[in-house]
Amino acid sequence: MKHIYIQEVVARDGLQIEKQFVATEQKVNLINELSTAGVDKIEVTSFVSPKAVPNLSDAEEVMRGIKRIEDVSYTALVPNLKGAERAAMCKVDEVNLVASVSETHNLKNVRKTVKESFSSFQDVITFLSGTNIKINGTLATAFGCPFEGSIPEDNVMKWIDSCLDMGANGITLADTTGMATPKQVYHLCRKVLGHWPDLQLTLHFHNTRGMGLANVLGGIHAGVNIFDASLGGLGGCPFAPGATGNICTEDLIHMLTFMGYHVNANLDQFIHLSRNLENIVGHQVPGQIIKAGKITDLHPV
Amino acid sequence: MKHIYIQEVVARDGLQIEKQFVATEQKVNLINELSTAGVDKIEVTSFVSPKAVPNLSDAEEVMRGIKRIEDVSYTALVPNLKGAERAAMCKVDEVNLVASVSETHNLKNVRKTVKESFSSFQDVITFLSGTNIKINGTLATAFGCPFEGSIPEDNVMKWIDSCLDMGANGITLADTTGMATPKQVYHLCRKVLGHWPDLQLTLHFHNTRGMGLANVLGGIHAGVNIFDASLGGLGGCPFAPGATGNICTEDLIHMLTFMGYHVNANLDQFIHLSRNLENIVGHQVPGQIIKAGKITDLHPV
Repeated sequence: MKHIYIQEVVARDGLQIEKQFVATEQKVNLINELSTAGVDKIEVTSFVSPKAVPNLSDAEEVMRGIKRIEDVSYTALVPNLKGAERAAMCKVDEVNLVASVSETHNLKNVRKTVKESFSSFQDVITFLSGTNIKINGTLATAFGCPFEGSIPEDNVMKWIDSCLDMGANGITLADTTGMATPKQVYHLCRKVLGHWPDLQLTLHFHNTRGMGLANVLGGIHAGVNIFDASLGGLGGCPFAPGATGNICTEDLIHMLTFMGYHVNANLDQFIHLSRNLENIVGHQVPGQIIKAGKITDLHPV
Repeated sequence: MKHIYIQEVVARDGLQIEKQFVATEQKVNLINELSTAGVDKIEVTSFVSPKAVPNLSDAEEVMRGIKRIEDVSYTALVPNLKGAERAAMCKVDEVNLVASVSETHNLKNVRKTVKESFSSFQDVITFLSGTNIKINGTLATAFGCPFEGSIPEDNVMKWIDSCLDMGANGITLADTTGMATPKQVYHLCRKVLGHWPDLQLTLHFHNTRGMGLANVLGGIHAGVNIFDASLGGLGGCPFAPGATGNICTEDLIHMLTFMGYHVNANLDQFIHLSRNLENIVGHQVPGQIIKAGKITDLHPV
């Protein structure tokens, strides 16, 4: 009965690319309900410029509006020192720093070289030192870049090393545009955990090419036990319009539960929340379990 | 570079539940194109009563109309001796005999006990003895029944034994309503291949609960190298309206290829055929690769 930790990213990664702004109160309610549904960490919002991501312009209101419970860690994406200051004012448990390990992707995304992006992590880490706010470093496009293609494993190793050196408490390898295969995930994670056996390593997958849950298995086989997922599978990628987004939290919980893994999450509550999410965002979500039901939902003869 | 064999079931499992009848000529063209795209076996049609499955009422015309090529095996589902006679008249390479290992499901489906269904295989096998037509026995609901829930592994073992005893050349374990988990697939297939190491074992998965490709990996880890799949992920299950159907052939080929497995199929041709399938059936299909593109389809900066 291995324990797998589930981190919910719908409020940030899911909602940020929705066509409609989701009202602050709805975000707060959603996050409160996710808290009591038994998730281990929630990425609440992103302290970016409201111009860059209008959907998350209410970062402070959401972060201050939610009811925080003890067993859940509340994290927020911060792009720079200014974002970290805003996040610290709201007393987040963790900040999530993101840089792409692909030069082209990083330049397109934040107009910085990879080195400049990772160097800017140091300002945030210095600013937060002495507080009890943790630091997670996310390496975007760690399994492939939509412009450059494959990313050498050694690049990923180098930037993990750099993040840990600066004082990051955990690392996320993100398959930003859904390019990872299960074999690749297994090999890279074996290498990473071989080098840093005690690393708090999170995997962040998108189901863009249908391999999301298969990639989770690749990670588990390599020894990873922390996964990001998004309620209903909300989220997505501008490079693949029409394709599915992040791996779906309730589909992930369902698979893991029926494989005998232990997760804190209450599957039924997640299914309920996902159905409700369709009302919030005003369209169907890609998750399968809300359509098919659980394996144990038997039919009358 | 392990070789994985792909068997295409769209013309039977996919088209049989479509709302509209697909014209015989379109079926013939589709199957001809699948043949040259490098699939190992094609389930062409089903020799059932036209009243039971009106969409496949043109079984003879389709079977006789296609251009058969040497490297592809052309199989057809037959429900009984009458079906086998029709299939033999059309010189199929193989007949696929199907019975459910769940009493409730089998009764609902064909109004026979499991024992009666499997016994009826003998009539077909006796009739075909002396011909060069091969026999495949499919055990439906082998990983779970939508009415009864779990199916004991020993039941599955018993009916495989029975099929092989009667003279079946190969066995398919079908996850008819998408209830299998990767761990379950691994354990059952290890048991089966442990008992019959030389068995020609096919796995037939549905992606109903998002675990389709993960289940394929469970099978491969257990030593299975033959998988059914349906172009575009067409197909489905009356118990899960709105859920996805069979695992998608091009998504499967894509995953296996980029994991380093060898498949005969030409991925680009399958993507082309799947896009065309949307025109044939008049609606979107669930496959992801036709929306997201291949991992190697890079974007201009």
